[in-house]
Amino acid sequence: MSTPATNTEASETHGHGDISTGVAGGDSNASATRITPGNALRPEDIALEVRTGLAKPSGDVAEYALRLGDDALILAQRLGHWISRAPELEEDVALGNIALDQLGHARSFLTYAGGALGENGTPQSEDDLAYFRREHEFRSAHLFEQPNGDFAATIARQFVVSYYQFELYRRLTGSTDATLAAIAAKAVKEVDYHRDHSAQWVLRLAGGTDESRKRMIHGLKLMWPYVGELFEDDALVTRLAEAGAAVVPSSIREDFDRLTGEVFAEAELEVPDVPSAPGGGRQGKHSEHLGYILAEMQVLAREHPGANW
Amino acid sequence: MSTPATNTEASETHGHGDISTGVAGGDSNASATRITPGNALRPEDIALEVRTGLAKPSGDVAEYALRLGDDALILAQRLGHWISRAPELEEDVALGNIALDQLGHARSFLTYAGGALGENGTPQSEDDLAYFRREHEFRSAHLFEQPNGDFAATIARQFVVSYYQFELYRRLTGSTDATLAAIAAKAVKEVDYHRDHSAQWVLRLAGGTDESRKRMIHGLKLMWPYVGELFEDDALVTRLAEAGAAVVPSSIREDFDRLTGEVFAEAELEVPDVPSAPGGGRQGKHSEHLGYILAEMQVLAREHPGANW
Repeated sequence: MSTPATNTEASETHGHGDISTGVAGGDSNASATRITPGNALRPEDIALEVRTGLAKPSGDVAEYALRLGDDALILAQRLGHWISRAPELEEDVALGNIALDQLGHARSFLTYAGGALGENGTPQSEDDLAYFRREHEFRSAHLFEQPNGDFAATIARQFVVSYYQFELYRRLTGSTDATLAAIAAKAVKEVDYHRDHSAQWVLRLAGGTDESRKRMIHGLKLMWPYVGELFEDDALVTRLAEAGAAVVPSSIREDFDRLTGEVFAEAELEVPDVPSAPGGGRQGKHSEHLGYILAEMQVLAREHPGANW
Repeated sequence: MSTPATNTEASETHGHGDISTGVAGGDSNASATRITPGNALRPEDIALEVRTGLAKPSGDVAEYALRLGDDALILAQRLGHWISRAPELEEDVALGNIALDQLGHARSFLTYAGGALGENGTPQSEDDLAYFRREHEFRSAHLFEQPNGDFAATIARQFVVSYYQFELYRRLTGSTDATLAAIAAKAVKEVDYHRDHSAQWVLRLAGGTDESRKRMIHGLKLMWPYVGELFEDDALVTRLAEAGAAVVPSSIREDFDRLTGEVFAEAELEVPDVPSAPGGGRQGKHSEHLGYILAEMQVLAREHPGANW
């Protein structure tokens, strides 16, 4: 396949060059964190920095981290359902691994977000944010809560997600917020694999049987209405981007279109011509799907609040 | 905790010493496989050896591999349901990783089993065996199909499974069947982690709140009736053990009791005093649970048999 090799090392080296397409330079917001891109970063490390005050996100940064974390969390929940249910056992393992990668990214982003969001001055934990927020407090885009559908629909969703996340995280490695940059540096390497995985499946299904091609086209049609929301700017990201902390979503659309376009061309598929669905996820407006996802995800923790068993 | 450190390297070195508690020596059954313990082993490697005839399990070995593979497959299916549903996000990731490890072991064992089980002389694939067998053709023990219950019940099941599998795989690294030995050598390292994970949780829950201790005790009581079946011998394993290929289940009971006993002692728990449930899983007799698990696991592949999309 012709997808260009992605060179994560290179993109890290000139991270500010990449991010400058979306954000202004400067590091006036550089935090006092000891976290630097390139370190192996665990959510526990971030939790420690948050608890000790070494990493303290602004309200804007926390809200931004919540968006990225919720995207990953909701997707992980959807993908987890594929374990032992994919058309091939090998694929079970692959989708399960992607689910766990996304869950790991969610843990990091939510842990960091929790540092600014506590009402009583103490940080909220990743678990507080995952299990005790209500539907309208989630900030994920609508694409992430779309049903799995058949295997081709899941691949279509993953294809869009992976190309979007890769471009986003690649630029975010140059963020003036050291914690966001460090989370992104770890995540982009994993998402690079997700991107390759989904592109290979798009090609395989599109070039397979009549049935598989039909399903691939249908899956892409189901997911494409939710692409637009991913690239919508608003006041929050614009403010953060001016300080060099965030990536302006609209700035990565061109690369997304070009790179997914290369896969479409090789697969002899056309970009779906479907109207955009209304978004609103970043403001807490969700489809009916999210409520069911949250009910399932939150039931255990809510039955025993604070039990810590 | 006082669980002795397990030295996989050491146990591999004197694998025949260990396995000799359960099987006779000799390597008259050594296969012509190029697979040797210590190589990183993927199911794809086994599939290649099976297709080319380099690894060709006897009917007995295939049946034995099916037992081990089905145990892991059914457990993976159960554990997969915990993704984004554990009481802590961190735990979601841990249980998800254990599920994927088990699925990996299942793929290897089933791929190998398929080499002997084809009706028309061609190997059956892991997917054939996972998705197109009927309930009475599955060979998993009843413990593996027990419902997740609450988190403590899942931990209790995992505790028993991990200590059982660790002792089994550790001895199986000395098998005269090179493929079984190689699969076991890879699996034992991963199961060593599962063992530590579940033991830590038993200690944490037993030593936590009154509620957590009560649930841990209850979880162990739920699972203990299914312990006995794991250590039952029959004609098949006895034949295989005489050739040095398999581990006699009853031969590992003593180590299992001693090592789990150390955790019970440290947790100040008593070994549950409950009657054994009737077994029969190795002969294809299952509880009503397995049918539901299979229905969910097999639906997609069966809707599109051979579609290969």
